[in-house]
Amino acid sequence: MTAADRSSSTLTPAYDALVARNARAWRLEHLGAIASWDQAANMPPKGNEARAAALAELGTLLHGMATDPLLRELLDRAEQEPLDVLQRANLREMRRDWVAHNALPAALVEQRALATARCEHAWRTQRPANDWAGFVANLRPVVRIAREEAQCLSQATGLAPYDALIDRFEPGMRAVELERLFGDLRSWLPGLIERVTVRQAGETVRRPQGPFDRAAQKALGLEVMRLLGFDFDAGRLDESTHPFSGGVPEDVRLTTRYHDDDLQQALYGVIHETGHARYEQNLPRAWLGQPIGRARSYGIHESQSLAFEMQLGMHPGFVALLVPLLERHFGPQPAFAPDNLARLLTRIEPGFIRVDADELTYPAHVMLRFELEQALIGGEIEVEDLPALWDAKMAAYLGVDTRGNHRDGAMQDVHWPTGAFGYFPCYTLGAMYAAQWFAAMRRATPDLDARIAAGDLAPVFDWLREQVWLQGSCWPTPELALRASGEPLEPAHYRAHLERRYLG
Amino acid sequence: MTAADRSSSTLTPAYDALVARNARAWRLEHLGAIASWDQAANMPPKGNEARAAALAELGTLLHGMATDPLLRELLDRAEQEPLDVLQRANLREMRRDWVAHNALPAALVEQRALATARCEHAWRTQRPANDWAGFVANLRPVVRIAREEAQCLSQATGLAPYDALIDRFEPGMRAVELERLFGDLRSWLPGLIERVTVRQAGETVRRPQGPFDRAAQKALGLEVMRLLGFDFDAGRLDESTHPFSGGVPEDVRLTTRYHDDDLQQALYGVIHETGHARYEQNLPRAWLGQPIGRARSYGIHESQSLAFEMQLGMHPGFVALLVPLLERHFGPQPAFAPDNLARLLTRIEPGFIRVDADELTYPAHVMLRFELEQALIGGEIEVEDLPALWDAKMAAYLGVDTRGNHRDGAMQDVHWPTGAFGYFPCYTLGAMYAAQWFAAMRRATPDLDARIAAGDLAPVFDWLREQVWLQGSCWPTPELALRASGEPLEPAHYRAHLERRYLG
Repeated sequence: MTAADRSSSTLTPAYDALVARNARAWRLEHLGAIASWDQAANMPPKGNEARAAALAELGTLLHGMATDPLLRELLDRAEQEPLDVLQRANLREMRRDWVAHNALPAALVEQRALATARCEHAWRTQRPANDWAGFVANLRPVVRIAREEAQCLSQATGLAPYDALIDRFEPGMRAVELERLFGDLRSWLPGLIERVTVRQAGETVRRPQGPFDRAAQKALGLEVMRLLGFDFDAGRLDESTHPFSGGVPEDVRLTTRYHDDDLQQALYGVIHETGHARYEQNLPRAWLGQPIGRARSYGIHESQSLAFEMQLGMHPGFVALLVPLLERHFGPQPAFAPDNLARLLTRIEPGFIRVDADELTYPAHVMLRFELEQALIGGEIEVEDLPALWDAKMAAYLGVDTRGNHRDGAMQDVHWPTGAFGYFPCYTLGAMYAAQWFAAMRRATPDLDARIAAGDLAPVFDWLREQVWLQGSCWPTPELALRASGEPLEPAHYRAHLERRYLG
Repeated sequence: MTAADRSSSTLTPAYDALVARNARAWRLEHLGAIASWDQAANMPPKGNEARAAALAELGTLLHGMATDPLLRELLDRAEQEPLDVLQRANLREMRRDWVAHNALPAALVEQRALATARCEHAWRTQRPANDWAGFVANLRPVVRIAREEAQCLSQATGLAPYDALIDRFEPGMRAVELERLFGDLRSWLPGLIERVTVRQAGETVRRPQGPFDRAAQKALGLEVMRLLGFDFDAGRLDESTHPFSGGVPEDVRLTTRYHDDDLQQALYGVIHETGHARYEQNLPRAWLGQPIGRARSYGIHESQSLAFEMQLGMHPGFVALLVPLLERHFGPQPAFAPDNLARLLTRIEPGFIRVDADELTYPAHVMLRFELEQALIGGEIEVEDLPALWDAKMAAYLGVDTRGNHRDGAMQDVHWPTGAFGYFPCYTLGAMYAAQWFAAMRRATPDLDARIAAGDLAPVFDWLREQVWLQGSCWPTPELALRASGEPLEPAHYRAHLERRYLG
């Protein structure tokens, strides 16, 4: 029993006990977050075994705390206590966590851990070897377990099975809504890609000439982070093989990766991660350590990184702001002309690989995955059916031929091997939300584009801080969208943004 | 109950349960070690509050594990189980830990935490202000609590009170033995310092001319670490305000600090920390996570850093090895002549400050502190008596006048404000052990000095690995010394080393 457990002088003893337990877990998770960042950014190879064991031990400890049998009673008692609206929201999120940690039988959790570890581990060599048959043998049990997991979560939440998987990543989002959103997308995206391809065939674009000194790239990245309002008293930029945003809200750790001959990857990687970082740095301080003090969801998080990278970062006014910085660090180049840079950044190229895709073709990759994983979890298709369906959809959406190329087909992502079904839609939800946020900002600040071009980014940051960052997890995603922008998620904003940028 | 607790198929179920509990604590401590290193090396200022809370939460958790009431019974039962000699040594160390964590009443632990936190916090401003009266008011309760602590530990261990404090840092060391060692030192050290001062008055020494590029200093440091056998696959070198050796044995994190006009501080700091690091990197792998897999003690740890910094690092043969490295990074300078460098490194200067002291005058600072803290804990003197005694001893041992200068007198160290009575002797024990190790090495390898001069450092590292590093905490310090060098700690080796180096 903690001090808070014993407290009986308040009217909300059960709720207070839950708050104290969450705060305790939060403090311990801090150590895991920093150790995980260190693992990616600093750790020498011989440290890995001990680090993995340490993080696993922490995971066991936190799982034990999250499955403490006392929690059920505390949650039930707290429901009866006089809570205000935010406390009630916090309690709702506590119950979400409780369901997530307690809905699955321990045997299923163990099976899932084994099957996904085996599948992911083998995938690391099977993918480069294009070994589809080997991969299928491991993915089949992962899918079988994910279907069972969906059933268990469905029973615990009352949601449909695939909805229950989605809800882990995007609270409140449902498959029927995704069908509406992706159905809309399907009706215009392939056509738009075709038109833009034709139009760009006649354009000439200059590429900046490298090599680009890495120290200068880092200095540029730091400057751009400053321009984007990153708080360097509460975070850092470092290097890692796979760029990410980690750490804790009080101390956000971004990483990037430099390429000698390519400026854009590191620079736009930093802009993307800075979007994630500012969300974390501006979560509601008073609620840090409690569930509603967390970022809302994966889709909303991605809406911040894409608001920074795509909406703002590729905005012609913002691109023009980058030119003097580029020239200062790398000297003048014809390729640094603002209109050339803007053309370069919006150059599209339908291809095999999602993570390499440009802004316009990226959602086609996600749409394909959503359709396939929904059918997989629903039992309408089996793992064996993936290649033929993958080929057909890639041909239809992007006009590329992936036959026999499993490595760059259904084997390219780590998500399914690790059992993260329901995650993929979040990428495109993020892009749609980002477009919707900017549409709302333009209503609030009609001269927004001129302000951006003049280097005044405050209207962007102020809107995001107020409408998204400071909201934490107070509302389910649909309600957050409604409160922030006055309407539910509306893909028309996304379409309008893409058409304006690529055909305007 | 862990799996190991429940195991009944072995003949040593209680011992096995204790092993499992130690392994669990070890894995969690890993996260604290990395987060603490990060706090010093990387963390931005706004991260500090959350980091401190996270580390405190881990401390509470580990304290709870160390004071679990079940432990007493497990320890008692394990005593009756058929253990081999190393298991029995491990059990002995487990009981040491248990006594350390359980000997003090919770109220005293809390009082100590409050009193030391208040004293240390105030000291940070009182020291620069030379505010002795203010400091005394806070140090008095710290000393009172330390006396109580000594009594409690005395009852739990059967040792005399001050012995019980020393034993926390140097297992097996007793005040009577320290009196013998420091008594010997007192008989010849002040005279030796005087003679060396006179002798050096006539010498001319050139100082290397800066500024010294920091990147070049870092590159030099890395090269010297390689020369000293540091395993970069199991550790790193970074920067921090106060250099230290941290991390975990599988991933040792060294830090240093660069000065534009002074090469020696960073370089010899790195050499010193590399000694600590190699000890950690070469602890017995099979026992990592168990008490006997740890480094033996503070004195033995310091014997490794000083073996590297003083015995090897200032060895004329080793100094000559550094010359080409210095020239490569900073160009040739007359000051880099090997005999000049050797003279420069052995230049002595009696002064006020322990941490700035040279090899020869350093032990005088420690001797003084040992004498004063022994009298303080024994109740023979009170905090108010410190300045007059400090002045008298500084005059006698080092010929310097500290009257009225409390800031550079009894207020200079953080040890007493934090209640670490019994720690100071370890510094000079380390220097004495280091001299004894090299004396033993010279018996084992008669041409050791020629080997070092030829750049063959293997005899040094092989001896230390075998005799000290791989021994972990298998033996109490006196037995470790006897096994390693064939004799108990014998200050004659230290004296002979200093006389040879400074008068030879």
